[in-house]
Amino acid sequence: MRELVVGVDLGATKVLTGIATIQGNLLSKVKFSTDCKQKNATEILDNISNSIDKIIKDNVTIRDRISGIIVATPGPLKYPEAIVMDSPNLGWGQVFLKEELSQRLGRPVIVDKDTNIAALGEYYFGQGCQYSQLLYITISTGIGGGIIINGRIHHGSNGGAGEFGHMVIKPDGPICRCGRRGCLEALASGTAIAREAVQLIKQEKGQGILACSKGKKIEAREVGEAARKGDIKARTIILDAAEYIGIGVANLVNIFNPQIVVLGGGVAVGLEDLLLEPVREHVYKNVFALHKQNLKIEVSKLGNAVGLWGCIAVAARG
Amino acid sequence: MRELVVGVDLGATKVLTGIATIQGNLLSKVKFSTDCKQKNATEILDNISNSIDKIIKDNVTIRDRISGIIVATPGPLKYPEAIVMDSPNLGWGQVFLKEELSQRLGRPVIVDKDTNIAALGEYYFGQGCQYSQLLYITISTGIGGGIIINGRIHHGSNGGAGEFGHMVIKPDGPICRCGRRGCLEALASGTAIAREAVQLIKQEKGQGILACSKGKKIEAREVGEAARKGDIKARTIILDAAEYIGIGVANLVNIFNPQIVVLGGGVAVGLEDLLLEPVREHVYKNVFALHKQNLKIEVSKLGNAVGLWGCIAVAARG
Repeated sequence: MRELVVGVDLGATKVLTGIATIQGNLLSKVKFSTDCKQKNATEILDNISNSIDKIIKDNVTIRDRISGIIVATPGPLKYPEAIVMDSPNLGWGQVFLKEELSQRLGRPVIVDKDTNIAALGEYYFGQGCQYSQLLYITISTGIGGGIIINGRIHHGSNGGAGEFGHMVIKPDGPICRCGRRGCLEALASGTAIAREAVQLIKQEKGQGILACSKGKKIEAREVGEAARKGDIKARTIILDAAEYIGIGVANLVNIFNPQIVVLGGGVAVGLEDLLLEPVREHVYKNVFALHKQNLKIEVSKLGNAVGLWGCIAVAARG
Repeated sequence: MRELVVGVDLGATKVLTGIATIQGNLLSKVKFSTDCKQKNATEILDNISNSIDKIIKDNVTIRDRISGIIVATPGPLKYPEAIVMDSPNLGWGQVFLKEELSQRLGRPVIVDKDTNIAALGEYYFGQGCQYSQLLYITISTGIGGGIIINGRIHHGSNGGAGEFGHMVIKPDGPICRCGRRGCLEALASGTAIAREAVQLIKQEKGQGILACSKGKKIEAREVGEAARKGDIKARTIILDAAEYIGIGVANLVNIFNPQIVVLGGGVAVGLEDLLLEPVREHVYKNVFALHKQNLKIEVSKLGNAVGLWGCIAVAARG
C-alpha cells in the first residue's frame, strides 16, 4: 500500500526533508544546511535528490510504499510548470524545478510555492483545521502568503497569488526590496523591524536594544527581547509593526472575508506574545461587522515543520 | 422549455428589471426610479414584485418559460441567506431580501451582491469572457468589487468578499464613510474626486471646474470635463485618483494574480479616456514580472446593464 509521503522544504539556508504517513505521522526528518546563494542550483538539486535517495535506501521497505514526493520552494514560482523565476531568496534565475527533480529521482514530483504549501498544512494539520476559507501570512525576513479557498490553494493565473507582502499600504513609506515604497514587507517584516532598531542605535537612541543583542547582529528577536524587558523604544518599533500588520490583515479580511487568518514565520511565532493581541485589536476594530462574525486570527503552532506538514497535506489532498 | 430569466438590479435610486433568454438575448427592460433612503424596504419590495408581475402578465406566454428570478442588490449582504445588513446605499437595516421576495412572488429567488453579479456578467458576457480568474472593480459613488475564481464568484465565509474600496492604502489619508482613514474609496471614488474639486473651488482655485459645472452640483463628470478642456487643476485631481486606483489594482494583482481586471461603474466608464492609461501604466510598472504576463486591464463595455447581464449569467451558470 502506497501510504507514505516524502516532503522537502527548500529554504535559502537549509533543506528539511521528512517522511510521513499520509495520515500525518512524521516518521523521520533530515535537515541539512545549504547556502543557495553561494551554490548553484544543480548542486543543491543533487543534494536534495541524494538526501531523498538516502532516506529511501536507509529503509528498503519504504521504497514501494511512497505515494508522492512533494517539494515546497520559495517563490516566485510559475505554476503549474513549477519554474523558479528569479527568486530573490534562492538567488536563482530560471530553474525548471519539477522537471530537474523528477529526472534525478526517476519519479514524478509535485512542486509548489512554500507559502501555498504552508497554508494547506495549516488547513489540514494546524490552526486552520476545518476552516476552508483560510489566509496564511508568513512574517519572517520577508512577508508572503497563501490563500485557501473552498479547501484548495488559490494559485492565480500562473502561480503568483498570495504576495501579501507587496501590498502597498503607505505610498511614501520606506523602500522595499522589490523597488517600490511602502509595501507591507518594507514596514513590518523582520528586516523592517531590524532596520528601525539599527537606525535608532545609529542615532544613539537604542541602548536598550543594543544591550539585548550582546554583540550579535540585531534582528527582530533582539528587538522583541528588549521590548519584553520594558524598553520603550523597542516596544514602539514592535507596536508600529503590529499596526502595519493590522492594516494589512484588515485589508485582506475585507477583500477575502476568510474564516481564519493564520500568522506564521519566525517573526510571528517568535514575537507572538508582543504582536498577536495588538494585531487582533486593530483588525477587529477595522473590518466590517459582517467580516468580523466568527473571524479567527491565530499564530501557527506547526513551528518550523509547517512546510513538511504542508507537503503531507498536498499528498493527502490527492 | 424554461429558458427565460428575470433579472432585477436594485440600486439606491432606481430599479432596473429585465427579461432575457438564458443565452443572453435581452427581450425587454423596465426601469423605475425609487429612493430607497426615503421609502421603507416593504414599499420598495412591493414595487419590485409588482414590476415583475407586470412583465409576466404583459406577456402570458412568458410565465411558464421562466427558469429563474435573479436579484442584484448593494452590499453588505449576508450570503447565502441574502440578508441585507445595514446597507449605507439602501439606507436599510436588516432585511431578509431573498425570503421577502420569494414570498411575494411565490417562486424561489436568487439574491446576490450587485458587484458579485456584475463580475459574473463580465465573465460571461463582457470584457472578461473566457478569463476564469477575473477581478471586477466598480468605481462610482463608492468603490466595490467582485472576485471570480475558476469561473465562480468568491463570496468568502459569509458574503463579505470583494470590499476592495475599503483597502487602506494611505493610513493618514482622508476619512472614509466607513470611519477609517485612507481607504481606496476615500481617495479615488467619484465622491473623493468631487470632494477634492469642491475644496479647490472653496479656495478659489477651481475656476475651470466651476465653469464646467454650469451651476450643477460638482461631480466627477464635471471634473473630467474640465480636465478634457485642459484645466490643469482638474487634470491633477483625476491623475491623483488614477494613481490611487493604480496602487489598489497593483495590490490586488499581486494578491490574486488574475488574468484580467475589469473596471466598471460610472466614474471608470465615464472617465475611461482620462483614467485607463495612467492606471495601466502604474500597474504594469508596479507588479511582478510573473503577474504581468498576459495581464489585461479593461473598462467594462456593458454600461448600465452590467447588473442585468450578470443576472442572466447567474441563471446561465445553472
